[in-house]
Amino acid sequence: MEEIKIQRAAKLKEKPDPKTLGFGKIFSDHMFLLDYHAGQGWHDPRIVPYGPFMLDPSAMVFHYAQEVFEGLKAYRAPDGSVQLFRPADNARRMADSCDRLCIPPVPEELFVEAVKALVKVDADWVPNEPGTSLYIRPFVIATDASLGVHASHSYLFCIITGPVGAYYAEGINPVKIYVENDDVRAVKGGTGYTKCGGNYAASIRAGERAEEQGYAQVLWLDGVHRKYIEEVGSMNVMFKVDGKIITPALTGSVLPGITRRSCLELLRDWGYAVEERLITAEELFDAAESGKLEEAWGTGTAAVISPIGEMGWKDKHVVVNGGEIGSLTQKLYDTLTGIQWGVEPDPYGWTVKL
Amino acid sequence: MEEIKIQRAAKLKEKPDPKTLGFGKIFSDHMFLLDYHAGQGWHDPRIVPYGPFMLDPSAMVFHYAQEVFEGLKAYRAPDGSVQLFRPADNARRMADSCDRLCIPPVPEELFVEAVKALVKVDADWVPNEPGTSLYIRPFVIATDASLGVHASHSYLFCIITGPVGAYYAEGINPVKIYVENDDVRAVKGGTGYTKCGGNYAASIRAGERAEEQGYAQVLWLDGVHRKYIEEVGSMNVMFKVDGKIITPALTGSVLPGITRRSCLELLRDWGYAVEERLITAEELFDAAESGKLEEAWGTGTAAVISPIGEMGWKDKHVVVNGGEIGSLTQKLYDTLTGIQWGVEPDPYGWTVKL
Repeated sequence: MEEIKIQRAAKLKEKPDPKTLGFGKIFSDHMFLLDYHAGQGWHDPRIVPYGPFMLDPSAMVFHYAQEVFEGLKAYRAPDGSVQLFRPADNARRMADSCDRLCIPPVPEELFVEAVKALVKVDADWVPNEPGTSLYIRPFVIATDASLGVHASHSYLFCIITGPVGAYYAEGINPVKIYVENDDVRAVKGGTGYTKCGGNYAASIRAGERAEEQGYAQVLWLDGVHRKYIEEVGSMNVMFKVDGKIITPALTGSVLPGITRRSCLELLRDWGYAVEERLITAEELFDAAESGKLEEAWGTGTAAVISPIGEMGWKDKHVVVNGGEIGSLTQKLYDTLTGIQWGVEPDPYGWTVKL
Repeated sequence: MEEIKIQRAAKLKEKPDPKTLGFGKIFSDHMFLLDYHAGQGWHDPRIVPYGPFMLDPSAMVFHYAQEVFEGLKAYRAPDGSVQLFRPADNARRMADSCDRLCIPPVPEELFVEAVKALVKVDADWVPNEPGTSLYIRPFVIATDASLGVHASHSYLFCIITGPVGAYYAEGINPVKIYVENDDVRAVKGGTGYTKCGGNYAASIRAGERAEEQGYAQVLWLDGVHRKYIEEVGSMNVMFKVDGKIITPALTGSVLPGITRRSCLELLRDWGYAVEERLITAEELFDAAESGKLEEAWGTGTAAVISPIGEMGWKDKHVVVNGGEIGSLTQKLYDTLTGIQWGVEPDPYGWTVKL
């Protein structure tokens, strides 16, 4: 592996108030860059001062969205040390995303080393207020200055980071969601299982409509039958029904979330029956109406666990667990965030100290 | 409408040999820019020297592919004048694409005026060798420096142009295509009817696989039933079966092509029965095997008309019209290119003189 060169910023930025951090608007002093050129492969890993890209207007990323990304966090443990959560899983998933998008995969070991090196350089940016963390955004863009519809021959892999606040500034509160019947986020055979830009572009309109109607997120149905539940917003989704845990199977249009995987491992360890399978909206609303839907929550890196308190679908409207966070949802949140922030022991070896 | 400011390049580039132009790799001296900021709307239309964009690494276009584009051409007529083909249709379609992607639509009148103004400034770049033209690429990208998954509050609308060669350097020859059974380009409820980057990103892998197997293009099936024909490569597709013309209906996952529309208008004018409807791959291959499939061709701005000579699907393989271009395909090509290059009269009012 090529050595990562480090060019430090001459002047460091002023750090924001850690009590009023939002999400994804403040960036640290440095970024990691790695180039790809056909014939040369990935080369020239380097950490440089955070700054703008200069790209030709014909760069493929602007036209054909040949781009993939990842999202993970660095956490400040009580002893002041900094740790990552399952970064090798992000490296693996980015390689899968690259494969679908015809992008040469970023070497997984280099991905993890780059994340570590960058977070070390900007370790002062990892905040220490409760619930805060350093969000890490690795991404690849196609840079060929060419309008032919083909895989690009050159790419840029970049990692940027920035401190983010507690996802729920006012504590973890259940959200209202509704089942989207018109727009489709992804379909089998498409790119739904990857973190490629196009999936998110396709999802924006439904998300905006949901917000206008007073909902926090959309519950996505599959694109083929329009009846199976896939994700909630940009999170995976899980339900506790009659004591069992059910969650949509990874059928090709659902993102294989790392928080999802971690939850399922915890739940199985705790003795819950866990079913990864097709779930219709009808089954879900029937369960809710008959009182068998005990809890519902989304899982993702940003929010970790997002309890669902109300759900709308056509003319139906149901309240989950009286609109309160359920005890299992709370336990998942406490356990995962406890491990991530180094407050609880990590029997799974999920965390990686810097 | 705000006046378009023009800042001319101090030094003009050397123009390439018009006999060896490819596609999409050479760009003219200038580009058009227009900014959008929430609260201000689209503003500051200007023509400036062609040059790179400076964008924050967190710009939304790099992460969530909130981006749309158009493609059209300027043609050099025999009298030396320059003309466009149905540019208002591109403006209309871009507004539709914007709507789906939650991008504030670029005013259609401004779109057309911007194209005209830019082509006038770079009129010397419109080549005059047979079959050559100036390719025009309008596109919008989301520029918010923010990682939240929401519609951006700022955008850049840009138009770049560049001379392109005859699509078929060696004359118009039928191509081999095969039916893609695994990857899906688009699905109803998604973004298939728009020209957004994500559609193209999703299509690259199948296109590359087709080329590796000696095929020029992929014939896309619908994402729901996986049996209805949608497009060929990044073109619309038409078939002459038993004297009638059939083409996939615009069901939401098919691009409403401007060349497609023009062909259908010509064909109806010429007295052909034209059916826009669902067409299964099975129906198509049955027609081919029973000798009823007389001609097949793709339609798009780049190639205008692309005759299909052979088609593969699973273990089936059929030859269309003995592998030769059909007489109707040729007539469509001659008529459309005749109108576009100003060699034939334009009874439809499709061309717009500069």
